Amino acid sequence: MQSSLFVQAASGKATSRTPVWLMRQAGRILPEYRKVREKAKDFKKLVKTPELAAEVTLQPVRILEVDAAIIFSDILVIPEAMGLNYEMEENKGPVFPKKITSVNDLRGLHIASPEELQYVLDAISLTKKELNGAVPLIGFAGAPWTIFSYMIEGRGSKTFSAAKKMLYTQPAFSHQLLDMITESTIHYLKAQIRAGADVIQIFDSWAGILAPHQYKEFSLKYISKICDAIPECPKIVFAKGAFFARAEMNTMNCEVVGLDWNMGIAESRALLPDKVLQGNLDPCALYGSREDVKRETKKMLDAFGPSKHIANLGHGLYPDTEVDKVKCFIETVKEHNKLKA
Amino acid sequence: MQSSLFVQAASGKATSRTPVWLMRQAGRILPEYRKVREKAKDFKKLVKTPELAAEVTLQPVRILEVDAAIIFSDILVIPEAMGLNYEMEENKGPVFPKKITSVNDLRGLHIASPEELQYVLDAISLTKKELNGAVPLIGFAGAPWTIFSYMIEGRGSKTFSAAKKMLYTQPAFSHQLLDMITESTIHYLKAQIRAGADVIQIFDSWAGILAPHQYKEFSLKYISKICDAIPECPKIVFAKGAFFARAEMNTMNCEVVGLDWNMGIAESRALLPDKVLQGNLDPCALYGSREDVKRETKKMLDAFGPSKHIANLGHGLYPDTEVDKVKCFIETVKEHNKLKA
Repeated sequence: MQSSLFVQAASGKATSRTPVWLMRQAGRILPEYRKVREKAKDFKKLVKTPELAAEVTLQPVRILEVDAAIIFSDILVIPEAMGLNYEMEENKGPVFPKKITSVNDLRGLHIASPEELQYVLDAISLTKKELNGAVPLIGFAGAPWTIFSYMIEGRGSKTFSAAKKMLYTQPAFSHQLLDMITESTIHYLKAQIRAGADVIQIFDSWAGILAPHQYKEFSLKYISKICDAIPECPKIVFAKGAFFARAEMNTMNCEVVGLDWNMGIAESRALLPDKVLQGNLDPCALYGSREDVKRETKKMLDAFGPSKHIANLGHGLYPDTEVDKVKCFIETVKEHNKLKA
Repeated sequence: MQSSLFVQAASGKATSRTPVWLMRQAGRILPEYRKVREKAKDFKKLVKTPELAAEVTLQPVRILEVDAAIIFSDILVIPEAMGLNYEMEENKGPVFPKKITSVNDLRGLHIASPEELQYVLDAISLTKKELNGAVPLIGFAGAPWTIFSYMIEGRGSKTFSAAKKMLYTQPAFSHQLLDMITESTIHYLKAQIRAGADVIQIFDSWAGILAPHQYKEFSLKYISKICDAIPECPKIVFAKGAFFARAEMNTMNCEVVGLDWNMGIAESRALLPDKVLQGNLDPCALYGSREDVKRETKKMLDAFGPSKHIANLGHGLYPDTEVDKVKCFIETVKEHNKLKA
């Protein structure tokens, strides 16, 4: 796997063409995924059954021909393993029946051990076996700040004001909980790598709601800690909305930084000269015609240039995207680069 | 009113101290507001009854002692006047029973005339009379892109992917609808000024979900058109999340640019050297203790410096903010500046 296109690029090495994969490629848009999802009845069953998780992980490799697989799972398996159960409500997203409201609630939590997430590790082993070296496998976890937000809010939010209130009113407690999440995540990611993950990605989905000074103190610090603790493989950090932290991320111990579609490419290159960049086509660009998709994809590829780039969208795939347009995006990346070579 | 602290500052002139007001100050946090709200039964009744709208507009002037009033209304009165009725669902926000799905739906719409929004104009006249010159009055409207999004989505959204899909798949139709909204808004804002508004603010709440090139084409263009059409008074443009458009906004025909709390102050000064800046304390900073609020407010004031600044939050007040903390924010702005003078 060390010699694959994707791992080479993620390690900052030159490659014959730009590799491509998509966030949320495992699931959401494929009819083949929805069949497995129906078989599993609910989302968590799918996440917790290694055979099914492996199957939907492999689908985009076979059907879309992406250059990397990403294990089908959820960032909220970490708070669950720590002692805070979540449920997935149809069309509503995750909900925590109990949430963390004060330091007293920490008594119900513990630092998760990888054994509590054995089902993810089994899904990784199984996937690796079935991939049989075709493409590498990405493991992942949520950034501690994003996990913290869910544990405090109990669900998604427009302002995440309850989680942010905690940072302002109880900074010591906030750091204590963030530390527990960070420790759990380091153990978990190391176990994913032992089970076969070739590269790992950290998703900071709610990065964009913090003021720059708070982001540094309550999020970047913990992502850095994770990156420093994991020298085993290349690491991708995707902090959606954290345009203000790009300069600081250049000194972080990760090889790749993911960009969302708001972040200008030239500006990001200037702020992150030492990193491989991943991204960043607007997922809504795939709503256009095939011609539109080709044009927008080429524009993006030209802006990034032929090296130090992993092609992706600037966010996860939206559920109503047509498979044909996704294929068009992937093919365009592969073709455009060939022409350049 | 031309000589008031706030209008002077909004015109780019030197003032004895930094003026201060808050977005969503009219309503939300005051018990006095909730009493009027209960009397009116529902939100739209409150918006449409000039006496009640004027009353809640005046409350923050009397109770919080801000340096400007902002007329109590809603940005969605414009689509309603154009022919698309909205409803306000408790704890859920606005919902449009019918929404715009294709060019055919334009037949039900027209360019709104100010007479259709007479209730807002009456509320403005009434407020001005009762203010009796104490502080100036801010009028406002939503930016065309934000109004367009609501008309297409029918409600708030996490991704606004339906509205964005329209930009990608039907750009000509999108421009047609944006033009109609822009025309309606220009007439409306001019009427607000005739009725007594001293300064106007344009709110682009959903600026942050567009890619930079789309923001320029589908939002900035129309905000510029509005600014160009209204030489009568100073204009404030607040485009939440449009960090990427700051350099372009420096050449726009408005006097003041509002910043959200993600936007670095020094960086924004460099990108917007010709503008007065408004903002930008994180609304969640008001969850801290009085000492915290004072410290964070002073830090912000020092970063902006003593001139070309209108103090505000980086977003509207959150409903669970304590009145005492809001007062502390306002007092700190007034005191800190006095010390400097």
